[in-house]
Amino acid sequence: MTSQALYEQILRKQSFLCVGLDSDITKLPAHLLSLPEPLYSFNRAIIDATAAYAVAFKPNVAFYEAHGASGWAQLEKTVQYIRQSYPEMFIIADAKRGDVGHTSRLYAEAFFKTMDVDAVTLSPYMGRDSVQPFLEYGGKWAVLLALTSNASSADFETLPLAGGRKLYETVLETSSAWGTEDNIMYVVGATRAEMLAEIRKIIPRHFLLVPGIGAQGGDLQEVVKYGLNEQVGLLVNSSREIIFADRSPHFAQTAAAKARLFVDLFKSLC
Amino acid sequence: MTSQALYEQILRKQSFLCVGLDSDITKLPAHLLSLPEPLYSFNRAIIDATAAYAVAFKPNVAFYEAHGASGWAQLEKTVQYIRQSYPEMFIIADAKRGDVGHTSRLYAEAFFKTMDVDAVTLSPYMGRDSVQPFLEYGGKWAVLLALTSNASSADFETLPLAGGRKLYETVLETSSAWGTEDNIMYVVGATRAEMLAEIRKIIPRHFLLVPGIGAQGGDLQEVVKYGLNEQVGLLVNSSREIIFADRSPHFAQTAAAKARLFVDLFKSLC
Repeated sequence: MTSQALYEQILRKQSFLCVGLDSDITKLPAHLLSLPEPLYSFNRAIIDATAAYAVAFKPNVAFYEAHGASGWAQLEKTVQYIRQSYPEMFIIADAKRGDVGHTSRLYAEAFFKTMDVDAVTLSPYMGRDSVQPFLEYGGKWAVLLALTSNASSADFETLPLAGGRKLYETVLETSSAWGTEDNIMYVVGATRAEMLAEIRKIIPRHFLLVPGIGAQGGDLQEVVKYGLNEQVGLLVNSSREIIFADRSPHFAQTAAAKARLFVDLFKSLC
Repeated sequence: MTSQALYEQILRKQSFLCVGLDSDITKLPAHLLSLPEPLYSFNRAIIDATAAYAVAFKPNVAFYEAHGASGWAQLEKTVQYIRQSYPEMFIIADAKRGDVGHTSRLYAEAFFKTMDVDAVTLSPYMGRDSVQPFLEYGGKWAVLLALTSNASSADFETLPLAGGRKLYETVLETSSAWGTEDNIMYVVGATRAEMLAEIRKIIPRHFLLVPGIGAQGGDLQEVVKYGLNEQVGLLVNSSREIIFADRSPHFAQTAAAKARLFVDLFKSLC
């Protein structure tokens, strides 16, 4: 998918919502736990309920990997289900991978060929050759961690470098030359909304994937104020606040209502 | 496993070899490809052939993940096989994971409970809370990327910070306070052997996992000269040079001969 196609879909749906499928088995509605594939069953219901209000789904791979091969199988089925039922949807595997080039090539294969998602989150620590294999797939995206929303992002990400820039700023500056606005986007934690203006000076045209709306703090109004660009340029992720808003048998309807709020917010803010 | 137990095993086997199970399907001996689980069959043969000369096995998860759930199942069987057949062996999942704390907890569960390896490689980019969940399992290890052996490590890892240190040096200094020499070790690329002396000033007592011996360059003599500490403190990884030295039906014997060279080297160098 190109950034233009993603932009058009955002306009069509009047939403920049990305629903995070952080399907933690310990938080699932109790009545699903006896099913043979509880994560997949939960995801299907959430996907059907929220697809009208979202442009992207983002399964976080950790929640599937915790169950080993059976978890992976449910992740694969989830991606297939989205692909078949909502072919226009942008699918991000939140995997935070990265390895030396000849090994990253295999991760790219795992997510872009075996699984066929649109985008994968990657750690930038090892540099260009760890990212390059993901950029060689037409229409696919690398989503690089720049400034994350956790408290420990101050350990390294915001350290000042000798030249005056912070590490995450240099990550943005250096890595944006590795690809284009059509195959690289960045994770920028919304708890740092005041930094978004600075970030937009470095990468005015890239899409940003913004986690941390809700449970992790963050203020959507600030994000829009400082982060919006000509193509909207924002995917705003919400996970727990939508998918675990209700653990009763009516969880999917509640998730739909929570997701719909983002459409209202989009209309009022953008 | 404690660092003392690992040290004792190194002395007993006269080897610091870690065999990297980078089981790339495109490089497997042709006669294995028709088997139902070619990666697992290959691994079993390599493990049996080299276990006498190695203290650790390190499957790189990318090579399994590329095959989806079926690849994960073969990875799980590989780990189970090592655990059952060679219970003293140190098993490292080379996964290069890392996420916000509540998600990293699930990765720790994936590798330490569902799969039961001894150690997982992690990217330090997101800071302490992305590593902490791995340190809460008794006897298990986080193996943090510090200085990797790929050319692109110069993009960020070796950047000078405002205080004068390089990024990877600050990663070593900061993160070594998060745990102990019994639950943290570091990936230090052997192509930077001259930097090992500096690294040893920062972390004199930690174990180092040294990749890049062989195909990626690197000089074992230099690594030992600058990296050895009182407990040996080195796990030297070799992957392709051992497991793909021969693609004939005699591949396992050839792998054994290649692995045995590391015992001779250990005896002459340590």
